[in-house]
Amino acid sequence: MFVPQWIIEKKRDGETLTAEDITAFIQGYHSGSVPDYQMAALAMAIYLKGMTFEETAALTEAMMHTGALLDTAGLSRPVCDKHSTGGIGDKVSLILAPLAAACGLAVPMISGRGLGITGGTLDKLESIPGYRTDLSEAEFLRVVDEVGCSIIGQTATLAPADKKLYGLRDVTGTVPSIPLITASIMCKKMAEGLDALVLDVKVGRGAFMKTPEQARELARNMVRVGEAMGKSVGALLTNMDIPLGHTVGNALEVRESIECLQGKVKGPLWDITRELTAAMLLLCGRASDRDDALEQVQNALDSGRGLEVFRKMVEAQGGNPAVCEDLDLLPAAPTIETVTAEASGWIADVDADKIGRAVLVLGGGRTKAEDGIDHAVGLSELVTPGQRIEKGGTLYVLHSRDSDRRGEARRLLEGAVTVSPDAVEAPTLIFERMMPEG
Amino acid sequence: MFVPQWIIEKKRDGETLTAEDITAFIQGYHSGSVPDYQMAALAMAIYLKGMTFEETAALTEAMMHTGALLDTAGLSRPVCDKHSTGGIGDKVSLILAPLAAACGLAVPMISGRGLGITGGTLDKLESIPGYRTDLSEAEFLRVVDEVGCSIIGQTATLAPADKKLYGLRDVTGTVPSIPLITASIMCKKMAEGLDALVLDVKVGRGAFMKTPEQARELARNMVRVGEAMGKSVGALLTNMDIPLGHTVGNALEVRESIECLQGKVKGPLWDITRELTAAMLLLCGRASDRDDALEQVQNALDSGRGLEVFRKMVEAQGGNPAVCEDLDLLPAAPTIETVTAEASGWIADVDADKIGRAVLVLGGGRTKAEDGIDHAVGLSELVTPGQRIEKGGTLYVLHSRDSDRRGEARRLLEGAVTVSPDAVEAPTLIFERMMPEG
Repeated sequence: MFVPQWIIEKKRDGETLTAEDITAFIQGYHSGSVPDYQMAALAMAIYLKGMTFEETAALTEAMMHTGALLDTAGLSRPVCDKHSTGGIGDKVSLILAPLAAACGLAVPMISGRGLGITGGTLDKLESIPGYRTDLSEAEFLRVVDEVGCSIIGQTATLAPADKKLYGLRDVTGTVPSIPLITASIMCKKMAEGLDALVLDVKVGRGAFMKTPEQARELARNMVRVGEAMGKSVGALLTNMDIPLGHTVGNALEVRESIECLQGKVKGPLWDITRELTAAMLLLCGRASDRDDALEQVQNALDSGRGLEVFRKMVEAQGGNPAVCEDLDLLPAAPTIETVTAEASGWIADVDADKIGRAVLVLGGGRTKAEDGIDHAVGLSELVTPGQRIEKGGTLYVLHSRDSDRRGEARRLLEGAVTVSPDAVEAPTLIFERMMPEG
Repeated sequence: MFVPQWIIEKKRDGETLTAEDITAFIQGYHSGSVPDYQMAALAMAIYLKGMTFEETAALTEAMMHTGALLDTAGLSRPVCDKHSTGGIGDKVSLILAPLAAACGLAVPMISGRGLGITGGTLDKLESIPGYRTDLSEAEFLRVVDEVGCSIIGQTATLAPADKKLYGLRDVTGTVPSIPLITASIMCKKMAEGLDALVLDVKVGRGAFMKTPEQARELARNMVRVGEAMGKSVGALLTNMDIPLGHTVGNALEVRESIECLQGKVKGPLWDITRELTAAMLLLCGRASDRDDALEQVQNALDSGRGLEVFRKMVEAQGGNPAVCEDLDLLPAAPTIETVTAEASGWIADVDADKIGRAVLVLGGGRTKAEDGIDHAVGLSELVTPGQRIEKGGTLYVLHSRDSDRRGEARRLLEGAVTVSPDAVEAPTLIFERMMPEG
């Protein structure tokens, strides 16, 4: 007999739930026979007592099976996706998806919106005039098949219990739990009908996971769950103490992404994007080793094939493809100010958290899911640690609309960038690679 | 700003909540602005992280103030009540309230119904033909004023948040938590407008608290909360490994209670009732010491004044007072069987849990709050540990109605009473007294 409170009590007392317990509870929650208050009590018990790997895998499967699975059987190429736990200036998906497609993969990417200081891929893409993120499943699969990749928002049919549970966790203090995060991410990705998945687990001030230990535990959990479900899964632990790239803000990040696909961007953004794309090729068995994979990705960039796929994707999803040549088609903010260095030296630190908050305050992010967003505002030409700077040189350019918001953002940005009189080494970008071959 | 999830997160992380946090949360829960799922998450966090004494006191006050307080200012005598955490065969209230009234106290007793193996005072009283437990507040106070005591059910106006929270805890695995139990009991008792309160905290197989350590912690918490609210509070830790008295079952227990008030019952039931009543007199300053208090209670019994108060209370609440002379006015079960000893010896053990389950199965208790109850069924002439028994002597008499239920009860009762060939000491009845004077 299925009595929800017995399952809650079991977890409360630190016992291990069976797959049957978890499946019955999640199906009941999805169907409505288990009310929100019982789910909330179980979520808090899971938060405080944890879950074994087997329990987490069962939770992932149970949530996945509350919805339909994407039918990718008709795609001829290996099906692969990337998931990032989210960060400041993280525009990797916009560059990686076209490049992976240009290297022969099919990338059906279901992405999210920004919340809090963390930006969202959908918000970025929607700054391209006309771009639609709400394709039907049939349109989505057609674009993936014809173009090689497509990036859309979460559909109502994929893992609906996750959407319901996420909303509940958000108001019951049960968000930062490794098993609950793992299941939430993996149930959606596993429903995409993938052969392989690469995970970009961000670590640092601007990330959900503040320490490499936490990030490693989350990454291990997600990799094991994916493998238990028969997928080829790898993870990279990457630096989110500092923002990724030279821009933060939606349209500004699209601009930088296109410039990257044009081959004009060097440094951390390109390095991490290339690594993650290469990992996708390796996980799909499309490269003999990491060097081969990196070279294939570089070729896709240098040949312009990546930009070409991006252009086709934009066009197929209703956006103006001319944006790929004319970046001024993107929305621009009315007020643009340059902030400069008061002394020469080396960039010692760029605080991702402070910069994320500043862009949020400017209107470039949302504090509640229903908030609107200003695509044009943000920061560009942002320096990166280790870089030499001369007195009067640009630290960043502030793009804003409203003077009150600008004032508050300026206050948040005070001390966000630190200049040192002594030379500073560039920070580590990739802390750890977890790939099947070790 | 009051954000419920911030308070949940605070408790989840093991921090101490302020009185303001707790008051805002409980008021929000009572008014409906805090939904059940947030209350459930907080209850689980409290279960797993505990509460300081100050937090528990704040929770008690907050729950008490969601309703009206009983206005006992018009009563001329000291106002006192007793609360028991509940057990098998616990009919103390029926004897204690009239005796305490006969000794000069006012006893406005708001009592509960049985659930699971634990019996309820209201169910017992309702086996008296005509007895009403649903008096209005005005009627209740009038009976207390005129008779000295009244026993009724929980009103809708006293601590309504507790009723709501108790229902939620029942289905979210958050019942057995010391701070939540303390607040639930004390918010109702403190709303009764008492000067003093004595707590009978049961310990053992047939009780909620299985060990003296757990019971002591609960008792200490309740005493401190009551004292912090300016009341004179004491507690006794009493034995619930074995049932209290020689009967278990509603009408059978009323019969034993009346016999006790007639002065015909000796042993554990009378010893504990006398001690608890004496504690009430001491807490109200109506006795110089324990011996004086015990003597006053004995006098109230021996003089018949206790039985007289009981008769008046039954009459004032619509019941047939003739029951005090003619016990056959109480409902009786159609089938009565005597179970006897197979060998001579001493009663070594009587398992309160097994006996409680058997009476539940017979129909004398309820598994859900909405279940009906059979007042007539149960056990009488039950032996007590330490007692000498001869072969063929009565171990207990089984009162039943339905043959299927009888069969299941018999199976549960196998091994419930143990006879030893060697002499056995009577078990300790009172483990500890917590009284203000030490």
